[in-house]
Parts: sequence; structure tokens; C-alpha cells
Amino acid sequence: MTLSRRRRWFLLLLAGLVAATLLAGVAGWPGAAARPVDPLPSWNPGPARDGILSFVRQTTDPASPRFVPPGERIATFDQDGTLWVEQPVYPQVRYILERVPGVVPSRAELETLAATVLAGMPMETFHADVRRWLDTARHPRWRRPYTELTFQPMQELLGYLRASGYKTYIVTGGGQEFVRVYAERTYGIPPEQVIGTAGATRYGYDSAGRPFLTKEPRLLLNDNDAGKPEGIQLMIGRRPTAAFGNSTGDRQMLEFTSSGDGPRLAMLVLHDDARREYAYGPALGLPDTRVGPFTQGLYDEARQQGWTVISMKNDWKRIFSFEP
Amino acid sequence: MTLSRRRRWFLLLLAGLVAATLLAGVAGWPGAAARPVDPLPSWNPGPARDGILSFVRQTTDPASPRFVPPGERIATFDQDGTLWVEQPVYPQVRYILERVPGVVPSRAELETLAATVLAGMPMETFHADVRRWLDTARHPRWRRPYTELTFQPMQELLGYLRASGYKTYIVTGGGQEFVRVYAERTYGIPPEQVIGTAGATRYGYDSAGRPFLTKEPRLLLNDNDAGKPEGIQLMIGRRPTAAFGNSTGDRQMLEFTSSGDGPRLAMLVLHDDARREYAYGPALGLPDTRVGPFTQGLYDEARQQGWTVISMKNDWKRIFSFEP
Repeated sequence: MTLSRRRRWFLLLLAGLVAATLLAGVAGWPGAAARPVDPLPSWNPGPARDGILSFVRQTTDPASPRFVPPGERIATFDQDGTLWVEQPVYPQVRYILERVPGVVPSRAELETLAATVLAGMPMETFHADVRRWLDTARHPRWRRPYTELTFQPMQELLGYLRASGYKTYIVTGGGQEFVRVYAERTYGIPPEQVIGTAGATRYGYDSAGRPFLTKEPRLLLNDNDAGKPEGIQLMIGRRPTAAFGNSTGDRQMLEFTSSGDGPRLAMLVLHDDARREYAYGPALGLPDTRVGPFTQGLYDEARQQGWTVISMKNDWKRIFSFEP
Repeated sequence: MTLSRRRRWFLLLLAGLVAATLLAGVAGWPGAAARPVDPLPSWNPGPARDGILSFVRQTTDPASPRFVPPGERIATFDQDGTLWVEQPVYPQVRYILERVPGVVPSRAELETLAATVLAGMPMETFHADVRRWLDTARHPRWRRPYTELTFQPMQELLGYLRASGYKTYIVTGGGQEFVRVYAERTYGIPPEQVIGTAGATRYGYDSAGRPFLTKEPRLLLNDNDAGKPEGIQLMIGRRPTAAFGNSTGDRQMLEFTSSGDGPRLAMLVLHDDARREYAYGPALGLPDTRVGPFTQGLYDEARQQGWTVISMKNDWKRIFSFEP
């Protein structure tokens, strides 16, 4: 091999290395990472998924006319039926009923009953009791803890919004302190971002002079219907940018959210998949229910206001993380 | 110069460059950044400043037995007299009195009066009215807007805690919606981190069907005394790691904070500087007051519990940002 031939080979090798380095720099390294990660892998292509992606893209791009500053990126989520299974009966209702056997209250009577049953209980005792119950209670259909029955597509949505600078809140008709017990490990939502139906507490001292709080039988906030925007004003103090619900109890939260200036996202989960989860309405002729009803009136308002209805059957590739 | 001499010079130069690069990497670049920035430049050396620095160091060092995970780093601040001037009369009292000329209520009557005067007002109208008032109102002594009369050492403390992963909250006896109007631009504290005395709101629709909230004459939370820990439970849902106050109305918040397990910081600002601000107690024989009293009983409890009393006169190098 002559010197000039060796030099030519050397230059070729060098050129190849430079090209490879440039390509790796552009496409990411290792090569497998070249394709961007899908933030919503459990969502089927369609208007719901597209609506979320384009809303997030527009509100987080500083060059977009619909850009929202990070501090104002507030997303509120109903819990029962929106983030986890609510049928055949709200998990919290089962918790309370197990504490007063023989009584079958309506949803409306439930808060009064809960307030009476739990009044005078130190807050820390209540938290420990809920924690114990969650460890042992199983859903009658899947025989799994309730905290495993969260909707995987909504978990991905929570994570995607947070990664995009959104502060995620639960705004639930359920008990605020009940949900706070598991919201952080179940949804990554800390106690201060859980708003729910809330009773008063009373500050006092134990026999050693150590202060503690007890639950009082006085309702401060009924976080259903109009109570949702009222609770949002009390606890957040500004209008959400995005809101997600699934029943008539979420109507006012979605109205309040979507009637603000600038870009807003409002979505409702429709349970139309009896095979994989449940099917209930009574919108679109689905069976009626007292647990999380999605009425025809709510459906009509959603269409009129431009809210997106998420079909569990069509929009969700899988519903639970434990599905194959 | 022989070749070997040139090579020796070259090697020396190379070694010097390597050493300089390593040093720059260790010490930071440019050299001016080598000395760490003092996070509390308006604080004099002493137990208050030392207490803050060592608390933050210990709770943020993962190797420390007193380490606190970021999510649990909650710091709550009273506002009037702790973050800004409250004498000779709470700024919000002046705001309300200007709306009902001729009435001079006590602090206790104030909330009832405010509730009556402001009832039925749309929330957005109220916010705009407070904003207008803040633009024009001037403190009688300094002839400056109230929002300029914040304590510079406390502003530095807020910033230092936030830079150390603490979430900073205002927990005020004043009106929650009043303080929310200016808390973000004045203290960097967003509306959802302002807890205060709060009235109910009512959700309704205007003639165009657009939803809005109005103020209701019904008190939800009297955020004074025992109301402070109760408000913290309602809005944050966990015990603060650090709490700062200045009067008897903050006693229970400091008790609740400091009685938790693990490291806790509790501090009280004592107004003992009539020349630069005001001097009032009646602890330590300072003049008595109805505006933010620091009683002898509170002083004794602080000593017994190990809470730090911050002397404005001795601990603060300067009080306002506009001082030379």
C-alpha cells in the first residue's frame, strides 16, 4: 500500500466518522431514540387524541398566539368515572357503608351520613383507617384494589400535561381527605392539589398538650355541580385552562373552564364499553344510572359548546395498565 | 533554541492550560463566581439568620438525617406584619372603610362588614376594584403604595426557600381574594398558594348565558388563630415544615407546624424598631396595640417551644428595598 493510498483511506474513514456523528447528533443517539416518544400510547388516533396534542402544542409554544404562560396552566380532573372506575358503586360509598352496616343511603344522604359517622375522629386516625381499607378492599368484578383500577389513558394524559408545565388538580365530588390519602401515589397529585367535598375541622390539644385536628360534622364545600367552580375559586383562585369530567356533576366545571378567554380544553369521558369496563348514559340510549350519569342534556351541551366526548370504546386502545 | 527545548516549552504550556481548565471547572467561570452568593444579604449575622441557613442546609441535603423530600417542603407565612407593614391600620381595613365612610368597626366586626358591603359583587369586579385601589392608595407615613412596603429580608427569605425547593404559602387573617390580587407580583406567590379568610361564592349566569361567580355574605373560613391550622388542613392538607408569623393570630399555626415530627422551623417577627418601622408588643414592655399584638404570653411560648424571635432592629440590616 502506497502512502497516498493510505491517506485516501484515512480521509474516507474520517469523512465517514464525521457524517455518522452529524447524523447521530440530528437524529439522537442511540438510533432507536430517533423516533419521538408517543406521550399517549394508549389512545387511538382520532379527534380526542388530536385535540389533546394540538391543545398542548399550541399552549406551550411561545411563538403561538394561543400560548399560555406556565403559571396559568391549570388542568382539573374529576375523579370517579374520569380517572378510575366508579361502577357499580363509588368506592368511597363502600368505605362508608362498611362503617354503618345495614344502611343504604342515596348519594345525597351520603355526605350527611359520612359527616355523622366520622365526626370527632382525629384527622390522622381517619387517614390511617382509609389507608387500611384501601389495602384490603377489592373491586367485585376485577378483584383488585381500587387504586389499580385507574384508566391508563388518563394516567398518560396527567403525565403528559405535567411534562408540558400544567399543574394537575383533582376536583371531585368525593371526600377531599379520603382522596388525599392515595392521590399522590396513585396519580402523582399531591394533597394540596386535591379539591373535594370538605367538612370543617376543629383545632385542639391532646392530654400532652400536643395539637391535633378533628373532623367536624359541618360541611364547608359540597364539591358537586356548581360546587365545583366554587371549590376551584376557593382553592385555586383562577379559572382552569383545561377540565375533564364524565357526568352531570362536572357540567359547571366544564362551563366555567371553557367560557374563559383564550385557549381552553373541555372533555367528557363516555362509558360506552361494557365489555372492557361499563356502558352507561343515559345519553345516546345507553343504560341509565344513578352513579355518574351522562345525560342526553349534558351530551347536547357538549356538542353545542364544542367539548370533546371521549369514547372509551373507540378512543382508548387499552383501559387498565394490567391489560396485556 | 534546540528542538528539545521547544518541546519542553510546549509541554509546560500544555500543562499550564490543562491546570487552568481544571481549576476553572472546579471553581466556576468566570472567576468572580467562585465566592457563593449570600442568599440573605439584608440579614445581620446572628441566631435568626443562622437558624434559617442551617435549617435549609439540613432539610435539603440528601445525606442529612433531617432531609425533607421536595414535595413535603411547605413554608407558610402570615402576611400583615410578617411580610409587609400593618401599622397604623391593616391596609385591607382602609380599603373597606373607604367603601363605607363613617363606620369604624373593630377587627372582629370587619369580616361581617366586608361580607355585607361586598356581597353580591361579581368576583371579577371585586378584583378590578382592589387593583384600582392598590394603584392609588398610599401609606400615610411613607407616601408609597402598600405593595412597596414589603420587608426586604422576608422577600429574600421567600426567594431563598423557593430556590431550595420549598413551596411558599401566605396564610393570612386578611381576605383571601383581596391578597390574591397582588400576591403574585408582590411576593411571587400564585393565587392557589394564598390562604386567607374566605367567604362563599355563588355560581350563576349572566344575561348572555356566560357563567360567573359572585361573593356571598357567608363566611367559610376565619383564617385567624385556630382558623390558621384549620385553613392549612383545608387548602394544603399537610403540616407545614416552616411557619412565620408576628402576632397572637399566628400562635396556633406555629404550634401546629413545630409539633410535627422531623425538622421544623417556627419564627416570629418582633416589631422593635420605631425609627425604621414601628415598635409594638406588648411583649418586652413595647407599646400595646390592637393591630398585630405580640403579647408577653406569645413571647413566653416562643421561648418555651424554641421558636426564634426575629428582632427587626437587630436582625435586619435594612427593612425596605427602597432604603439606601
